[in-house]
Amino acid sequence: MVKIGVLLAGCGVNDGSEIHEAVLTMLALDRLGVERLCMAPNIKQRDVVDHLLGEAVSETRNVLVESARIARGEISDLADITASDIDAVILPGGFGAAKNLSDFAVAGAQAEVHPEVLRLLRDMHKAKKPIGAICIAPAVLARALGDFGPELTIGNDLATAKILESFGARHQECPVYEIVIDQRNCLVTTPAYMLGPGLKEIAQGIDKLAQQIVTMVS
Amino acid sequence: MVKIGVLLAGCGVNDGSEIHEAVLTMLALDRLGVERLCMAPNIKQRDVVDHLLGEAVSETRNVLVESARIARGEISDLADITASDIDAVILPGGFGAAKNLSDFAVAGAQAEVHPEVLRLLRDMHKAKKPIGAICIAPAVLARALGDFGPELTIGNDLATAKILESFGARHQECPVYEIVIDQRNCLVTTPAYMLGPGLKEIAQGIDKLAQQIVTMVS
Repeated sequence: MVKIGVLLAGCGVNDGSEIHEAVLTMLALDRLGVERLCMAPNIKQRDVVDHLLGEAVSETRNVLVESARIARGEISDLADITASDIDAVILPGGFGAAKNLSDFAVAGAQAEVHPEVLRLLRDMHKAKKPIGAICIAPAVLARALGDFGPELTIGNDLATAKILESFGARHQECPVYEIVIDQRNCLVTTPAYMLGPGLKEIAQGIDKLAQQIVTMVS
Repeated sequence: MVKIGVLLAGCGVNDGSEIHEAVLTMLALDRLGVERLCMAPNIKQRDVVDHLLGEAVSETRNVLVESARIARGEISDLADITASDIDAVILPGGFGAAKNLSDFAVAGAQAEVHPEVLRLLRDMHKAKKPIGAICIAPAVLARALGDFGPELTIGNDLATAKILESFGARHQECPVYEIVIDQRNCLVTTPAYMLGPGLKEIAQGIDKLAQQIVTMVS
């Protein structure tokens, strides 16, 4: 049975995985009849944000432990997962992709990808296994795979797109209900909440992304 | 425009709102073209559970602040919301309904409903405005509205159903993809993760519940 990894980065748009994007990814995979394997790095979150006030607070939380909320406890430590365990992987968005999976949110053009994330993404790419990325998560792909000239989208934020291009990526503008496919590198991306406006629109792009990923592995 | 409240209880199946049920409720409402108003009580969670290990930890979190993660910050303090602000309200499930909106998880047959939740539910009922409840959340309705003989479902857990009947409710067994409608009391319930097994099945029941609620207010 096809098994698709879902790489989470915490639980909440401002310091972890964007919850709607993560759940809609899981729903799409479930409807496509494939197995999912949720995973997250076992590291401290970069910060903890009070989502009511939108302000950082002096708390510490663990990315794997908080991601387990979205996964209902069915989640693996990223360190235990290799490219041979899964047929493809999808990265939902949220600031967690840019704070925990990488430091793009704070380092911008100097961003680095977390070593375990970098390992999995480069091994997946080497094995020609598809990678999907949603919202801001394509920034992680741009940095991790920039030397392969990945074609991707983060919607229409051209200032941010310029930084991704400085990593080696080629950015394409894309509406929320669509996807950008890089056949050569086996990448699929969709803007989701980089554009919004709401759940029904981001679900269209995420459904297409999941379907394309499953088509690529089948 | 029709406005439907979504009453949250934290963020995570074991100590808050079940995240999938909450997001699927919001998705269904968005697709039905109605406005949503997320709300939660501004109180301390009964406990904080490590969702990786499934064990309570010595932390404190606030129900409104954690619920804001699911709502992307667009959420109101339940204390500021009255029945006149909304046309209907839906309660997703998760242990938060039985730990924070009520103490059903610990008190069982002696359970009480949080005063603010009780106020809103009884005012909604008095105004003949529909109430939807998902998974274990019908237990809150059973306790809050037991004197009206509410007809509802929590799936097929007959031991738990017996307690709800001791509150005055009449329990109906129901499969995950279906709903139970109490026309007299304007209630709609669906079992969701009381039965599972996964996202695509619970989405069927939640979609029907949201559609029925919107039909009732239109």
